[in-house]
Amino acid sequence: MQNVTLWGETLRLLVEVAATAAFALSGILEGARKRLDAVGVVVVGFLAAFGGGTLRDLLLDQRPFFWVHHVELLWGVLGLSVLAMLFLRTRHFEVTERAMQWPDALGLGLFAATGAHQALLLEMPPLVAVLMGIVTGVAGGVLRDVVCNQIPSAFRDHRPYAVCAFVGGWVYVGLWAIAAPGWLALSGCVGVTAGLRGLALWRDWQLPQWRL
Amino acid sequence: MQNVTLWGETLRLLVEVAATAAFALSGILEGARKRLDAVGVVVVGFLAAFGGGTLRDLLLDQRPFFWVHHVELLWGVLGLSVLAMLFLRTRHFEVTERAMQWPDALGLGLFAATGAHQALLLEMPPLVAVLMGIVTGVAGGVLRDVVCNQIPSAFRDHRPYAVCAFVGGWVYVGLWAIAAPGWLALSGCVGVTAGLRGLALWRDWQLPQWRL
Amino acid sequence: MQNVTLWGETLRLLVEVAATAAFALSGILEGARKRLDAVGVVVVGFLAAFGGGTLRDLLLDQRPFFWVHHVELLWGVLGLSVLAMLFLRTRHFEVTERAMQWPDALGLGLFAATGAHQALLLEMPPLVAVLMGIVTGVAGGVLRDVVCNQIPSAFRDHRPYAVCAFVGGWVYVGLWAIAAPGWLALSGCVGVTAGLRGLALWRDWQLPQWRL
Repeated sequence: MQNVTLWGETLRLLVEVAATAAFALSGILEGARKRLDAVGVVVVGFLAAFGGGTLRDLLLDQRPFFWVHHVELLWGVLGLSVLAMLFLRTRHFEVTERAMQWPDALGLGLFAATGAHQALLLEMPPLVAVLMGIVTGVAGGVLRDVVCNQIPSAFRDHRPYAVCAFVGGWVYVGLWAIAAPGWLALSGCVGVTAGLRGLALWRDWQLPQWRL
Repeated sequence: MQNVTLWGETLRLLVEVAATAAFALSGILEGARKRLDAVGVVVVGFLAAFGGGTLRDLLLDQRPFFWVHHVELLWGVLGLSVLAMLFLRTRHFEVTERAMQWPDALGLGLFAATGAHQALLLEMPPLVAVLMGIVTGVAGGVLRDVVCNQIPSAFRDHRPYAVCAFVGGWVYVGLWAIAAPGWLALSGCVGVTAGLRGLALWRDWQLPQWRL
Repeated sequence: MQNVTLWGETLRLLVEVAATAAFALSGILEGARKRLDAVGVVVVGFLAAFGGGTLRDLLLDQRPFFWVHHVELLWGVLGLSVLAMLFLRTRHFEVTERAMQWPDALGLGLFAATGAHQALLLEMPPLVAVLMGIVTGVAGGVLRDVVCNQIPSAFRDHRPYAVCAFVGGWVYVGLWAIAAPGWLALSGCVGVTAGLRGLALWRDWQLPQWRL
């Protein structure tokens, strides 16, 4: 049993690191596309990777931030930016983004779960917990796009992204409400969120259109 | 007397709900104009409706946020977004915006008063209290426009908006300083702010121009 | 000795006021270029002058903000905006910006030092302290540019700016670690930051390019 817990923890850590790298890379590539200088690329990478969790902690009044406890994450994104600038060329961008889709989807689910979890610990109402999950998963990309002077892709892409985290968040809240074990709520949320996101990309689902 | 208090409370609640709806609708319509998807429309509606009060609470370090106590407000804006997407067409936009001018102006006054009130309770200096009132009333619209990738209309419209809340805020601070009863300070602030805003729209007042 | 301390304090205050004015003016001029109305000009001036320190205090959970203790700074920027609108014409803009380069560079160093200092007092790790210094010095300009709907110049200028604060911040952290006296750490950080910035402008240094 202890062995299983250890495996679970390791898996979770792996997903978290891969997702943070995927989020950071989305910022680094966007910065490159906008022809930012080295400082801009690093900052946009930071915003994309840490913006969501930081905003969640700011809203829930949790301090110190997770990246104060895990400074190695900051160094990692800094190193990733330098590596990208040295080795990534325009022709690699699309391949990289395709490869990042799964870590990104898993990260969306993981971050939705951690956001909801923190809010539930603070006895927030269910809807607020779900929203905190979405903030954790989505706000980094929003900040990235706002700083790059474009409408956030999460708001105009018409492919479900935040909606997957919304459904996954309710799964987490529901399993929490019936006092399911923590690993079940976590994997339920990650599975549903990432599964929906995968399905949406595979079947090319579109959000319902506003007929103006 | 108790009857009057009850009436006052009801009136205040009515203004608050109407103003929140007006702020949310301004975001929903802006999102529609920018062809955002359903998620984007909802988020911009949320930002416009709750952004100002949330930023105020963040700056004054007040937790939990008002929308944690009143989750029904969140559900309300969510429902309003869905209704708007189902029933509002482009030809309704201008009519809706015209109809929203009065709830918007009253809400600006009410939010200016609540912002100043909270700051005064925390013994902030008068100017800071007035600024917190303006933040409460104006920041939601600013966030809405930043996310929609345009210069905030509150900063380039040349029709007085924040300025009305500035004057109204000083009215509130002044009446508070002479220990006037709460309902008087509140209605003074709302009356002056909404009155000035109404006059500005009616007489087409313009802010003084910077001759460059 | 006491005399020296007094001189140091006066010098520091002078730099702080000059730097705040330089930061505010950068916002006021940007607002004028974007043809904002009077409210917009004042707000962008406020954001440029106080945005960095406020974001730092928000992230480090320090309240009340420095401008609550020093309301005269708020009045000062308000007055500066009015004076600029009355007397500055387009032909003065470039001259003003050139004259502001030194106060701006000194302020970058001073704000980097105060940001790092506050983080170190809270026992943050060195990298976080350096980042807090950069946030203090740079975030105001970033907010100014985001509200003016352009990519922050700090991220696409290719002339070292945040990088100077990065180096200066490490100087501060290093001197703090070896328990150097406060005035030495402060002047070391300001000297290195402003010196590097001056050199960068004089020799026209460019950040390394990402070969895409």
